[in-house]
Amino acid sequence: MMKIVSYGIRQDEQPALKEWQAQHPEVQVQVESELLTPQSATKAKGADGVVTFQQAPYTREVLQALHDNGINKMSLRNVGTDNIDMTAAKELGFQITNVRVYSPNAIAEHAVWLMGRLLRREPEYTEKINNHDLRWAPEIGRELRMQTVGVIGTGHIGQVLIQILKGFGAKVVAYDPYQNAELAKEGLYVDQLDDLYKQADIITIHVPSTPENIHMINAQSLAQMKDHVIIINVARGDLIDTKALIAGLDAGKVAGAGLDVYENEVGVFNEDWHDQAFPDKQLEDLMNRKNVILTPHTAFYTETAVKNMVQISHNDNLKMIQGQQPDNPVQLG
Amino acid sequence: MMKIVSYGIRQDEQPALKEWQAQHPEVQVQVESELLTPQSATKAKGADGVVTFQQAPYTREVLQALHDNGINKMSLRNVGTDNIDMTAAKELGFQITNVRVYSPNAIAEHAVWLMGRLLRREPEYTEKINNHDLRWAPEIGRELRMQTVGVIGTGHIGQVLIQILKGFGAKVVAYDPYQNAELAKEGLYVDQLDDLYKQADIITIHVPSTPENIHMINAQSLAQMKDHVIIINVARGDLIDTKALIAGLDAGKVAGAGLDVYENEVGVFNEDWHDQAFPDKQLEDLMNRKNVILTPHTAFYTETAVKNMVQISHNDNLKMIQGQQPDNPVQLG
Ligand SMILES: NC(=O)c1ccc[n+]([C@@H]2O[C@H](COP(=O)([O-])OP(=O)(O)OC[C@H]3O[C@@H](n4cnc5c(N)ncnc54)[C@H](O)[C@@H]3O)[C@@H](O)[C@H]2O)c1
Ligand SMILES: NC(=O)c1ccc[n+]([C@@H]2O[C@H](COP(=O)([O-])OP(=O)(O)OC[C@H]3O[C@@H](n4cnc5c(N)ncnc54)[C@H](O)[C@@H]3O)[C@@H](O)[C@H]2O)c1
Repeated sequence: MMKIVSYGIRQDEQPALKEWQAQHPEVQVQVESELLTPQSATKAKGADGVVTFQQAPYTREVLQALHDNGINKMSLRNVGTDNIDMTAAKELGFQITNVRVYSPNAIAEHAVWLMGRLLRREPEYTEKINNHDLRWAPEIGRELRMQTVGVIGTGHIGQVLIQILKGFGAKVVAYDPYQNAELAKEGLYVDQLDDLYKQADIITIHVPSTPENIHMINAQSLAQMKDHVIIINVARGDLIDTKALIAGLDAGKVAGAGLDVYENEVGVFNEDWHDQAFPDKQLEDLMNRKNVILTPHTAFYTETAVKNMVQISHNDNLKMIQGQQPDNPVQLG
Repeated sequence: MMKIVSYGIRQDEQPALKEWQAQHPEVQVQVESELLTPQSATKAKGADGVVTFQQAPYTREVLQALHDNGINKMSLRNVGTDNIDMTAAKELGFQITNVRVYSPNAIAEHAVWLMGRLLRREPEYTEKINNHDLRWAPEIGRELRMQTVGVIGTGHIGQVLIQILKGFGAKVVAYDPYQNAELAKEGLYVDQLDDLYKQADIITIHVPSTPENIHMINAQSLAQMKDHVIIINVARGDLIDTKALIAGLDAGKVAGAGLDVYENEVGVFNEDWHDQAFPDKQLEDLMNRKNVILTPHTAFYTETAVKNMVQISHNDNLKMIQGQQPDNPVQLG
């Protein structure tokens, strides 16, 4: 019988994993709540492959330990591979897969929820209502239908987002160096980012954080935007120069920001700071503003996305074990 | 020169009123922040009509005072006419208009924002984040795309809502005794409310509170719904039997509720209770639940809706003054 060891399985992943197990009686899945470390790697002895998901690095030591226990097939349940020692993985003959598309809708919907909360001034109302102040004035809201939304990047997520925005009747302007033929036919693209900046009441970014894109939202690009623009970032924290964003908020240039990601989020997000000093003053400043909504990288965190992450990774691990080509191979180096 | 006295004008109404004044130099508009009372009615002496918006009743005394000051043309900036003494209005020869449709989108979008916040468990996250707990598990969210949404009532608001839901890719089932031809062609209607109750993960009501519809969501209808249903009410508070809803929440039958209206809201909503005993224990109980989102009748409160309320009411008041047929006459009794 084939055997897969699945590390770091969370409570919320168990229903999807159970479902996969029921569909694959030919595979024994050993579930470990522990993360993959040189120590826990010994638990994989005798297995055919491992499935993992962690922000902690996949160091040479970890990979060596797996190798020493006879494992060289590793499937990540998430997309990020920056934390893998690729040189070691190559030298040790690893085959690795990840999950590149698990639910564009999870992310696109989250972007729209952030827009809605900002347009309706939800944080201000929530505070009032918590204080038993049930007056509606003066926090008047705006309708998404009346806004021009600038969508930067029309890949998997941007495209889903545009369908949602069209349902609201919002005006969409999009920019992507690689245009989608359907959207181009509808006349949604502008040729220059500048044109998008000039027109958009809300700007939302859905591009990868390649070197050219880092800090693409900065003092210069902000200056080109409309006064009282709303900025949404559910892509990558380093796409925004946070200092410039804060200056824009202070100056009133930026009316609001919805952020699921943050430049310096690693080591801060997904941790509980409630009984410790908060480690990042800049982030704390953002979180204290009533016109900023921060979510700690939870855009992806839906039942559908988690199910896809669990099942796609186990499918690919099984394919590798059976000597088939996996759907999502990772290029090593 | 024609003259209109506009009572109870709020700060947020002034931009729309200024715009209307600029378009109507032939009319003098006297702006009063006070509500219309027998006392303040004297300020209308010499005017041709009045525009008002208030929850306080339009009693015989108020109408008599207007009449004594030579006014019998009154335009409400809102829809509700229950608080008018219709017998007196008729006897005193009043002509009255209201604003029946000011922005179905304001209400439909609000319903969708409530769905999003509940599906993503926003109140739980907001509390965690306010406490500097940035862990994402275990409050896993759901995607609107994956839900079946039951829309009860497909009038102005229900129709807009359905367009928005389709953009998300949600499955829509609708019920209305008077079917819309377009929606019927798309096959969205069920013939019986029971069928909607059986299928829907989210149920949202957009019907008037006619005597037949009062408490249409009650213990019996709740029992027919799916377990873990989400209920949205941005229509009228008395459509829901609140006690039955609370029982459903307690039993776990109802997973969440988004309420912009409440049976006993008059005298409680749009007031500041922060330094007084909160007057309604049942409402307080609802507000304290993390799976209930209450907004104090703010669905309508957008820049677009307020602009329409101000401008449509002044247009109709002017039409009556000029002896023309207004667009939104109110049947007196
Ligand atoms: N918050 C989360 O939980 C989460 C989850 C998944 C993905 N993401 C992020 O979302 C982003 C988009 O993901 P996707 O799956 O849609 O990617 P994708 O590869 O399908 O699409 C990205 C698009 O961006 C375009 N692009 C690149 N540089 C651009 C630029 N400077 N201006 C305009 N367009 C540009 C590309 O041509 C491509 O069409 C990525 O940054 C990804 O890391 C975030
Ligand atoms: N929260 C707010 O701020 C706010 C603002 C405006 C309107 N509203 C409320 O929203 C509701 C809908 O408004 P609208 O403008 O769409 O009204 P509408 O008159 O355009 O549509 C109402 C629809 O409900 C249908 N209907 C009546 N009884 C029904 C039943 N038992 N089952 C199914 N369908 C039924 C009617 O046939 C009609 O198509 C009303 O209750 C209105 O008072 C709330």
